[in-house]
Amino acid sequence: MGRTGIGCGVIGTGYMGACHAQALARVGHSFEPALRPELVAVADAALDSAAAARDRFGFARATDDWRELLADPKIELVSIATPNVLHKEMALAALAAGKHVWCEKPLALTAADARELAAAAEAAGTTTLVGYNYLRSPAVAFAKKLVEGGELGAVTQFRAIFDEDFMGPASFPFSWRCETAKAGTGALGDMGSHLVNLAHFLVGPIAEVSAGLATAITERRDADRQLRQVENDDVSETLVRFANGALGHIGCSRIAWGRKNGLDFELYGREGGLRFTQERFNEIQLFKPAERADDNGFRTILTGPPHPPFARFTPGWGHGLGFNDLKVIEAAHLLEAIALGTPAWPDFAEGWRVEAVVEAIAKSAAAKRWEPVPA
Amino acid sequence: MGRTGIGCGVIGTGYMGACHAQALARVGHSFEPALRPELVAVADAALDSAAAARDRFGFARATDDWRELLADPKIELVSIATPNVLHKEMALAALAAGKHVWCEKPLALTAADARELAAAAEAAGTTTLVGYNYLRSPAVAFAKKLVEGGELGAVTQFRAIFDEDFMGPASFPFSWRCETAKAGTGALGDMGSHLVNLAHFLVGPIAEVSAGLATAITERRDADRQLRQVENDDVSETLVRFANGALGHIGCSRIAWGRKNGLDFELYGREGGLRFTQERFNEIQLFKPAERADDNGFRTILTGPPHPPFARFTPGWGHGLGFNDLKVIEAAHLLEAIALGTPAWPDFAEGWRVEAVVEAIAKSAAAKRWEPVPA
Amino acid sequence: MGRTGIGCGVIGTGYMGACHAQALARVGHSFEPALRPELVAVADAALDSAAAARDRFGFARATDDWRELLADPKIELVSIATPNVLHKEMALAALAAGKHVWCEKPLALTAADARELAAAAEAAGTTTLVGYNYLRSPAVAFAKKLVEGGELGAVTQFRAIFDEDFMGPASFPFSWRCETAKAGTGALGDMGSHLVNLAHFLVGPIAEVSAGLATAITERRDADRQLRQVENDDVSETLVRFANGALGHIGCSRIAWGRKNGLDFELYGREGGLRFTQERFNEIQLFKPAERADDNGFRTILTGPPHPPFARFTPGWGHGLGFNDLKVIEAAHLLEAIALGTPAWPDFAEGWRVEAVVEAIAKSAAAKRWEPVPA
Amino acid sequence: MGRTGIGCGVIGTGYMGACHAQALARVGHSFEPALRPELVAVADAALDSAAAARDRFGFARATDDWRELLADPKIELVSIATPNVLHKEMALAALAAGKHVWCEKPLALTAADARELAAAAEAAGTTTLVGYNYLRSPAVAFAKKLVEGGELGAVTQFRAIFDEDFMGPASFPFSWRCETAKAGTGALGDMGSHLVNLAHFLVGPIAEVSAGLATAITERRDADRQLRQVENDDVSETLVRFANGALGHIGCSRIAWGRKNGLDFELYGREGGLRFTQERFNEIQLFKPAERADDNGFRTILTGPPHPPFARFTPGWGHGLGFNDLKVIEAAHLLEAIALGTPAWPDFAEGWRVEAVVEAIAKSAAAKRWEPVPA
Repeated sequence: MGRTGIGCGVIGTGYMGACHAQALARVGHSFEPALRPELVAVADAALDSAAAARDRFGFARATDDWRELLADPKIELVSIATPNVLHKEMALAALAAGKHVWCEKPLALTAADARELAAAAEAAGTTTLVGYNYLRSPAVAFAKKLVEGGELGAVTQFRAIFDEDFMGPASFPFSWRCETAKAGTGALGDMGSHLVNLAHFLVGPIAEVSAGLATAITERRDADRQLRQVENDDVSETLVRFANGALGHIGCSRIAWGRKNGLDFELYGREGGLRFTQERFNEIQLFKPAERADDNGFRTILTGPPHPPFARFTPGWGHGLGFNDLKVIEAAHLLEAIALGTPAWPDFAEGWRVEAVVEAIAKSAAAKRWEPVPA
Repeated sequence: MGRTGIGCGVIGTGYMGACHAQALARVGHSFEPALRPELVAVADAALDSAAAARDRFGFARATDDWRELLADPKIELVSIATPNVLHKEMALAALAAGKHVWCEKPLALTAADARELAAAAEAAGTTTLVGYNYLRSPAVAFAKKLVEGGELGAVTQFRAIFDEDFMGPASFPFSWRCETAKAGTGALGDMGSHLVNLAHFLVGPIAEVSAGLATAITERRDADRQLRQVENDDVSETLVRFANGALGHIGCSRIAWGRKNGLDFELYGREGGLRFTQERFNEIQLFKPAERADDNGFRTILTGPPHPPFARFTPGWGHGLGFNDLKVIEAAHLLEAIALGTPAWPDFAEGWRVEAVVEAIAKSAAAKRWEPVPA
Repeated sequence: MGRTGIGCGVIGTGYMGACHAQALARVGHSFEPALRPELVAVADAALDSAAAARDRFGFARATDDWRELLADPKIELVSIATPNVLHKEMALAALAAGKHVWCEKPLALTAADARELAAAAEAAGTTTLVGYNYLRSPAVAFAKKLVEGGELGAVTQFRAIFDEDFMGPASFPFSWRCETAKAGTGALGDMGSHLVNLAHFLVGPIAEVSAGLATAITERRDADRQLRQVENDDVSETLVRFANGALGHIGCSRIAWGRKNGLDFELYGREGGLRFTQERFNEIQLFKPAERADDNGFRTILTGPPHPPFARFTPGWGHGLGFNDLKVIEAAHLLEAIALGTPAWPDFAEGWRVEAVVEAIAKSAAAKRWEPVPA
Repeated sequence: MGRTGIGCGVIGTGYMGACHAQALARVGHSFEPALRPELVAVADAALDSAAAARDRFGFARATDDWRELLADPKIELVSIATPNVLHKEMALAALAAGKHVWCEKPLALTAADARELAAAAEAAGTTTLVGYNYLRSPAVAFAKKLVEGGELGAVTQFRAIFDEDFMGPASFPFSWRCETAKAGTGALGDMGSHLVNLAHFLVGPIAEVSAGLATAITERRDADRQLRQVENDDVSETLVRFANGALGHIGCSRIAWGRKNGLDFELYGREGGLRFTQERFNEIQLFKPAERADDNGFRTILTGPPHPPFARFTPGWGHGLGFNDLKVIEAAHLLEAIALGTPAWPDFAEGWRVEAVVEAIAKSAAAKRWEPVPA
């Protein structure tokens, strides 16, 4: 085959840990990476969880000691898919061990921590990637291509929201998600960070922000039925001004009844516009003014083989990718970057820039004024 | 019939003047107003336009002198549907003449002017109404009923946009719309004022705002092909915090390619949510959490006889009202208020409150900080 | 003005009678018909209903004797909007009196009766029109223009359904609608006739049909709570082959839960396709293959001024017409035909052709084979 | 783990061969099958294709001799994903070798051949499955559950279409798809068979059919640029009457411009209705009449963890499955059936019943009358 293996380890076996594992196991089904993942080890604080993941995805071994995993010389690439509060320590250790690191978002709980990680990554010289998977769909890639190719003209306006309703019920329990020390901000850090990254991807750097945060459900009961004060935002709304002059809005909510994966954006340029929702991520709406007035309209473009990397999965136009496929695309991008020695994106530097914007948003909400994003 | 006539005069015969005239001519087809409009006179600076409108809608006479129209004692109700810059003078004169006044939005170009008009209306003691017609649809009325009835719980979040693309083409000429002296703000005053009024209607008073404005197309050619500087905003984005604590966003654009009547809102409460677009104003999306997890979803509710005042127009569920019908509903509301001596809404006081918010938005954009809305 | 009046009388004041009356009263607001309706008389078997309609729409007088209305020499145009079983007698009498006749659909309960009416119309030489109002929307007119202009290529395929759910509830009472003698067929005659007419309009003559009918709710209680046998179809499904070779399907149901005005069609030609639903009749989906593969998609075209006769109602693109506006357009078409002496369409000859197809469908369902439509 | 391996072989490495292979390779990532696939061998007439698939999916070996694959005693389950014309010979051989057989649809080119295969399967006593993968989505499974649970009442009506446009261009070349001997019928056999199977799944046996077929593009150029006569249907339209009395329509087209995976259905029962399109297969529209008239509407239900087997793939509601995931679900169903000795569905008997209906449809189209489906 001419392809070389690359030893992989995954830390964490929950929602995103499983997502990383399946992506590494499957990437060769769809792509032809120069480096082909070998699933060396999987770690979880609970050994039985690690063992279950080993059997499920075909790792060679399981461990409850993530440091031991990092010490394995056969492992060159490490996935970190643990609770957010653990990302920093693990990622620093992985970099120190000379590993390539694929870390779930958000990179860290504070911009300072994220900056420290970005610096460590630069020092280590290995390849890093933060798991902002929504960039990976053929539809969003197509949006990027249109913007970069100038087909929509200079971008004038960008609006994006990310709404879900998992914390809509007042009965949803108090958890680490409600605590600043464990989660940082609320909807902003968890969901808004996706929007900031997406804004960077499609439009470019954000120069300044103005924001408001709100905690609508101020108390929730914890596992012991004790009422606890919710410490962070259920809803955040932010105005953004991009370095290129475009004006925008990003908003997010974890209590928006009825929305399940409500990451929607609209982008307007001097020559056209786009509308998208992640809940229907296999399609995108494109408007370019037609020559004739009477046949103007947004086109509902179903993605298919003309929209890379769709054809990697199926030749069937409109047949659709799934959420897990997005992580496969992400894995392919990472493996190619490692093989070629080119930067992956969003790398730790971008992970830090996202957190810098998130921090500026929180600062703006507190100061009640527009705040510049530090360069 | 037991119903009494009420003499009506309309000033202005353009887009909105025709809309007022047809509403007055038709309101009796659908409603049974205690006061039935008699179309006494129509005025336009161009006499031939006035005469054409007279013939088209059945006014008894036409004039090119609006003051003469106001002097007609048979006229009790006056519609003002002239360019915005003329509203103030005409409305003050109409009030001074003891008329009921139905004035197109925005009420005036500045909050100070609007306040003067509100004061004059209070002094006159007649009935006033500002033409924020988007409130009138059965779908929006249904939204209001749900919110007021508490069915969605306390409102936590409100987002609304109003996007059109009529000024999207760089070739769209410089006109009064681009001049502060004649139009006030741009998209903000023209379209954003609808959103402020709608926010008041559905959620309540706005306590404070933070905003950004942008002029994307900075120069346009006037009728003489001279390049002129555009003085006001193409795009405005505003965060709002309501007196009741809900957080929100309102944005508008006159250069959003592909949007034609893109007044969309979403409103979330503690118990449910709503989504709506004026481009499909005969339907609304409602989410209330279902008892069973597997049949949760936004319902696309087509308006029909159960949604007043739909049945006034047709018994055919889903058969749809048109834009002109909204003005008929507005006329019916106004005539009922005059007949009963109850307040109409949005009256001149609300027209002023809207302008006060618009002014706070502009101030916030300039000062780059949250601004309170003056009480 | 140079325009002449035309005396109008309306028989029937229910759902469609009111719709005709408002159309005649309003047509001059939007169009500039050479003949301007004068509302001379309205008739209803119940005199108080007639009187109420007189006051509501501004007729000069009301009567409970439709023959007396027909005898009025001032009346040149007669609207017939009575229960279907009465159409024949009234229309024959109106034609015999030399009137132009605007008759609601279906023209008659049998093809033989419809043929008799078509012959009488031809003999009378006056202008006739059958009220298939769904043809009138700007979106459907645009579809017609695209097909006629060859922009979609030769039509290969046409599918249309018309589903409503008003008889979905088993508790919906037995009524004249359930009796063959009073209603003819069920969903087929009532709703399917719209589809046949639409198929004629967009594609052309139907050569042969194959059908199935079903009565899902076989018994209903009448006003006296007696169980009665339902005599006609709740659901009809028909295959059609057009004279031009296109293949199609038309189906209708009066028990399709959730559909309110579910007249949907899709039409494909050698060069493109269209999709439409009457529930959103202010828009239409158009597909024409794009040069580039990656931006192919159905365009959601919001109707506006480029789609005649939209601009007759409002200059506001995307602002939308209502159901009643469609009847205004129909009235304008009829008045123009009378004024110019050109044929209106669908005239009584088409009304008969529709019933001939409906009868062939019923015959096919009984014989269980394809049946030719008699020429 | 307690789980046993099952040796698997795949014949064919094109579109569906790859789909089977990935499903076998991945099924253990999402499900916990009692029998876990071991990828023993892959066969393709082109050895390099077989070798590529071996490397891509991790088969132990590749071969260009499918008979040799069948002779391998380690292989217990065989996937047949070759051109349709080869299914019969291969499946018979596989059954004769005592294998479980997973065959792509359609099972065979004629009903007689399909019947022979069904008989062979019964004689062999092994487990068989035909690859009608559209049944597998959580949304369609939910539809099935609603129907079976009686929540929609007795089914009265079912309509389904399957439209694509891959043969819309007149320049699309003549191929085996256009030849009766190689493909059987055209759109009917290729796409309509999915609809027949789906109708069986959701509603039950079809008693009789009436149909029309059409070839719109009668000639196409082959690879040598020679004009060839197209032998089968571009479009088919069929009426169906189910054994339970429900009436229905199924239509399909391979030249429906703009449709990419246009498998849409609507199903109405006495108590509710469903609407679905495969182009958005992660959602389904459900209508159940609400107690209050004003909040009736179709619910857009995004599938998520409450809709099995969604949660097997991700806990993220609304995050979406992809087309390839459907085959994984199919594989899990098959493996469970083999392990438990229960029947899989759709097995070869159902594969035959589908072809019997397809044949009755073709016969009806030729005879121009309703035809019973042979029992």
